[in-house]
Amino acid sequence: MPGYWATGGFGMKWTLPPRIEICEVGPRDGLQNEVTLLTVAQKVELIDRVVEHGAHRVEIGSFVNPRAVPAMADTDEVARHIRRPVGVEYRALVANLKGLERSLGVEIRNAKLTASASVSHSLRNLGRTPSDVMGDFATCADFARTEGMQVTGAISTAFGCPYEGQVPLSAVRDLVEQFLSMGIQEISLSDTIGTAHPGLVHEYCVALKDEYPRVLWTLHFHNTRGLALANVLAGLQAGVIRYDAAFAGLGGCPFAPGATGNLATEDLINMAHSMGIATGYDLEGMLRLGLRVQELVGHTTDSAMLRVAAAGGK
Amino acid sequence: MPGYWATGGFGMKWTLPPRIEICEVGPRDGLQNEVTLLTVAQKVELIDRVVEHGAHRVEIGSFVNPRAVPAMADTDEVARHIRRPVGVEYRALVANLKGLERSLGVEIRNAKLTASASVSHSLRNLGRTPSDVMGDFATCADFARTEGMQVTGAISTAFGCPYEGQVPLSAVRDLVEQFLSMGIQEISLSDTIGTAHPGLVHEYCVALKDEYPRVLWTLHFHNTRGLALANVLAGLQAGVIRYDAAFAGLGGCPFAPGATGNLATEDLINMAHSMGIATGYDLEGMLRLGLRVQELVGHTTDSAMLRVAAAGGK
Repeated sequence: MPGYWATGGFGMKWTLPPRIEICEVGPRDGLQNEVTLLTVAQKVELIDRVVEHGAHRVEIGSFVNPRAVPAMADTDEVARHIRRPVGVEYRALVANLKGLERSLGVEIRNAKLTASASVSHSLRNLGRTPSDVMGDFATCADFARTEGMQVTGAISTAFGCPYEGQVPLSAVRDLVEQFLSMGIQEISLSDTIGTAHPGLVHEYCVALKDEYPRVLWTLHFHNTRGLALANVLAGLQAGVIRYDAAFAGLGGCPFAPGATGNLATEDLINMAHSMGIATGYDLEGMLRLGLRVQELVGHTTDSAMLRVAAAGGK
Repeated sequence: MPGYWATGGFGMKWTLPPRIEICEVGPRDGLQNEVTLLTVAQKVELIDRVVEHGAHRVEIGSFVNPRAVPAMADTDEVARHIRRPVGVEYRALVANLKGLERSLGVEIRNAKLTASASVSHSLRNLGRTPSDVMGDFATCADFARTEGMQVTGAISTAFGCPYEGQVPLSAVRDLVEQFLSMGIQEISLSDTIGTAHPGLVHEYCVALKDEYPRVLWTLHFHNTRGLALANVLAGLQAGVIRYDAAFAGLGGCPFAPGATGNLATEDLINMAHSMGIATGYDLEGMLRLGLRVQELVGHTTDSAMLRVAAAGGK
């Protein structure tokens, strides 16, 4: 029997957090997959507007090899033009020391380092094992500390891998330990391929929160199999309060109808607000922004609330 | 604070049912909304195939005024041609005595009677109050009992109404009491407009199950706001084991992109199986069937698993 099978009986009252924090990852994990490349001005518009509508954390892009990810090549320019309201954290994905230096150079003082919990996934994507990747990250973490930057760790394929299937908790724990040894205490668990299910999310989150009570956990879900909101519900019941989401549910590839879109920010906001959970976001503003995102990328996206909005509903 | 706010702490282990029963409502609640009318042979094909892939309950159509719902006018013919394997329950929606007689005439011995928990919704849809509607149902229930038919009760807008907003539990309870007084002990709660959220579903189901322990509850969700699977998760945690779903997620109107599709059967099967919950269905078969449904109705539908399947994934 799976570990989330339980004693206790049906109908136990839930404990849910009174508020959650949403990190908007659309400008990075969303736009990097789009065929239509946005201009710097368009990206800046989207980032400024998402902050205007309540975001306190935005992943604005990545400082990685521009040949590998052309859509993110202009992240330096974007960083120079966004407004910087006090209290808003702007973050970028980096892969190495060079990326950290670029990030620092344009005053993006929050960097995200990503490693895969699956050896096969890491080898196929980066040609390196998770251990090798993490080895370099230690140098990055030292540099960041010296420069007063904040670093968060992200664990991709934390629940499932396209080559290995379900990823064991021990593989996740290994990376957590390594991030902790570098002084990184904010860690996100990413369901990269969208195979996580609520039972697994609840089981892993409860176990990890129990084992590492000081870590600030973030959950990052893709809606490939329609499970993103159910997985958030599982995370909420485990007491996780930080979630990544992308405006309009960007993240799929327009040429692959089954590709993995991120959980849509507006769908997450709607579920949270419906349940009396505060987000700090203005849903109406985010719906207008989501429609603008669809206009800019030139296609509809996997966002239930935008379908409702487009049909004149609310 | 809402009632599903709780004591008890985060990370409580869940109790989940080891298996669920899915009633396939695609042939009725799905196809009745389609512009393309299927032939009797096509409907029979879909119904026979869904049974072949594991369905034990199928809502094959409705015996209502054919001028009001032309897509269901041939339900008598459909009933005459479907296979009737032992152990499979075929059900139809009826609205009055005449419908029950038609149902009996073609040996469909399970009938569903639907009333709305919202007065405004009932008046706008039927021009009658829920009480008036229920009054007629008592006659139907008597007829059914005499003829040895099974009758289930369905409560539409059980969680939310387009005109009145959230529907109070007391309104649902009123209809439950009336169904019970007619001897109807199998009752479904329908989120007709897709505004139910997991907190509300859990709260209502826990309360109703506690108050009416002998009722067999079914939940019927639409995925308008992407919440259907999260709502199922809430129902599971309340111990509800019966769910309606429609192949390919049919139920929306092709001319209204925000319209309310049913929870896709294949998405529900996938979530259940991922979590180790048995359904008796063959998911691979249902994916092939879902693609066939999309082919017959002539458009793609809101089904995450069919998006994955169409992209060559699984």
